Amino acid sequence: MGDPAGIGPEVVVKALMDKKVRQSCHPLVFGSYNIIFSTVKKFLGRVNLRKITWVEEMAEGGKDSKECINVFDCTRFNHTKVRPGKITKLSGRMAADCVIYAVQFALSDQIDAMVTAPLSKKGLHLAGYDFPGHTEFLAYLTATQKFAMMFISDRYKVVLVTTHLALSEVAKAISKKLILEKIILAEEALKKYFGVKKPKIGVCALNPHAGEGGIFGTEEKKFILPAIKLAQKRGIKTFGPYPSDTIFRMVSLSNHSIPPSAGLSLSPRLSQGFDCIVAMYHDQGLIPLKMGGVGNAVNVTIGLPIIRTSPDFGTALDIAGKGIADPKGMINAILLAAQMSKIPPFGSESQGRRPKAGVKR
Amino acid sequence: MGDPAGIGPEVVVKALMDKKVRQSCHPLVFGSYNIIFSTVKKFLGRVNLRKITWVEEMAEGGKDSKECINVFDCTRFNHTKVRPGKITKLSGRMAADCVIYAVQFALSDQIDAMVTAPLSKKGLHLAGYDFPGHTEFLAYLTATQKFAMMFISDRYKVVLVTTHLALSEVAKAISKKLILEKIILAEEALKKYFGVKKPKIGVCALNPHAGEGGIFGTEEKKFILPAIKLAQKRGIKTFGPYPSDTIFRMVSLSNHSIPPSAGLSLSPRLSQGFDCIVAMYHDQGLIPLKMGGVGNAVNVTIGLPIIRTSPDFGTALDIAGKGIADPKGMINAILLAAQMSKIPPFGSESQGRRPKAGVKR
Repeated sequence: MGDPAGIGPEVVVKALMDKKVRQSCHPLVFGSYNIIFSTVKKFLGRVNLRKITWVEEMAEGGKDSKECINVFDCTRFNHTKVRPGKITKLSGRMAADCVIYAVQFALSDQIDAMVTAPLSKKGLHLAGYDFPGHTEFLAYLTATQKFAMMFISDRYKVVLVTTHLALSEVAKAISKKLILEKIILAEEALKKYFGVKKPKIGVCALNPHAGEGGIFGTEEKKFILPAIKLAQKRGIKTFGPYPSDTIFRMVSLSNHSIPPSAGLSLSPRLSQGFDCIVAMYHDQGLIPLKMGGVGNAVNVTIGLPIIRTSPDFGTALDIAGKGIADPKGMINAILLAAQMSKIPPFGSESQGRRPKAGVKR
Repeated sequence: MGDPAGIGPEVVVKALMDKKVRQSCHPLVFGSYNIIFSTVKKFLGRVNLRKITWVEEMAEGGKDSKECINVFDCTRFNHTKVRPGKITKLSGRMAADCVIYAVQFALSDQIDAMVTAPLSKKGLHLAGYDFPGHTEFLAYLTATQKFAMMFISDRYKVVLVTTHLALSEVAKAISKKLILEKIILAEEALKKYFGVKKPKIGVCALNPHAGEGGIFGTEEKKFILPAIKLAQKRGIKTFGPYPSDTIFRMVSLSNHSIPPSAGLSLSPRLSQGFDCIVAMYHDQGLIPLKMGGVGNAVNVTIGLPIIRTSPDFGTALDIAGKGIADPKGMINAILLAAQMSKIPPFGSESQGRRPKAGVKR
């Protein structure tokens, strides 16, 4: 559900009306039944809601389950006190409850994947969960030490070395060990979820012009290049570091136009493109990724024992409750989660296991 | 000419063969006559070269000047010691000489604009000119205190608050005063050179999610927002700060999809787009700008008493002397310089002043 003061409930119920979503999985909303009920009433009109206590109840429905929205009622706080656009301790606690329940269902294999609607970091803080965002909260709940944010659009897959961190802290936060860890996670995810047999990974520099030989920073030589070399020793096809204003356009480049990056060798394979780009900080990865437009990019947490995706937008408090939020990003996130879960699309001939996929409300 | 060890001489002579360039200005190369001679011989074959001592000699040529390359021979160092791909004290001094002469010609109004081919910061350093790049060197030579780098592509105009600086230094370098200065320079340039009567300027945040209310950094509240307010008080239409992963895609956005930026108000005018975006650091501005492909973006130094443009690529030492450098960026830079100089295109009916435009070699 995400934070009920934001656009979470609205985009969730809208997304669940999407035909492709219905064809790709059995959605289950983790949220407040009452809030989902009033959201549906307000924005969709007549839609059957069903309160689910056990996942097995979903299967019982048969055809029914495609026509109604199943809700696991996981928060008992007073929903009438939630106001659209007002992040409070209460809205934060409701959002946190949904995450906690969905994780338990995912860990116990009752659902195949979880998709998170936007929550507010401020709400989490107010509710006493001191995490910078969903990702770290999920890592905590699943006892995961090594994890990373991967963003996926039509054009790129990007993994971030640092995430929600003030820019002034970024240079201090990166290290050879951390960069290597993210490269390894990226390779594993590409193999496991996206069927890339020998992933090619490009790594961004931290500084402009990749430091231009140390004149504008030394992190390339001290941390990034050594991490790339260690990754290469492990057999991971890793390239870089490249200036971040060139790496994202390399696909459209003939090789000779690439400016020399601080004397670091450029590979002739570049024009073939990378399966994933490892960026040192949030905006370095997300500026190019989001240029394709809102709702195209999906956020995936890699390294977790469960599958988790999320749309690339926030709580959008300014439009919460107005009915104008676009569910496209939520739809993309659900479809990607279903794809990563390797659920055969409904109507296909394959006799796979019973598909299950939870949409955390 | 740029640094003769790089692709400068090659892209200059190739660009001067372009028909549109020939129609838009009278080019004059500032460089080593011998190096331009051997570059022409190697890559173009039969082209007339003319050594120019006074600008008036160009006018004398009449039709002739369109068919030959005019060179002002401004460096007497031994050209035979320059090796493609090897930046040396000598190549750096030759590059610096060209800049110094071209600036003198521009300041004395003998040429309307200067276009710089790539030089090497390392070469400049070796030659004893301790500037991080062309821009600061030009500011020094023209005694300019307030100046900025503006990058121009088909889609965007971007002005940088900080330029060639290690990422770890960026947060320390920005200040209310500096940001305001760049906003003012941007507005002036848009009015003076690009005919925008009431420019709308968007300003980037420094931190991810614009700091998300101070959780990921406070520079937005401390420096950027106050600078925007001061600019607004001066009557400049300034908006922001916006997270840098959303500001560049705002054109393609409906307003409601913009995530709230740290509680800072969003203007409904956003969907109309900005005439210019002010970015806090190099890659923040150049990642989105360069995604359109190499050679599309042109660098303009604003705030100087002279017009100066430059292509967006570097010396490309790895391909220097090979004849495969693409002059497209150089051509774009020359055409923009001619346009900024308001030179009427040749063959047009207008009876403007005698057009002059120098291409610094």
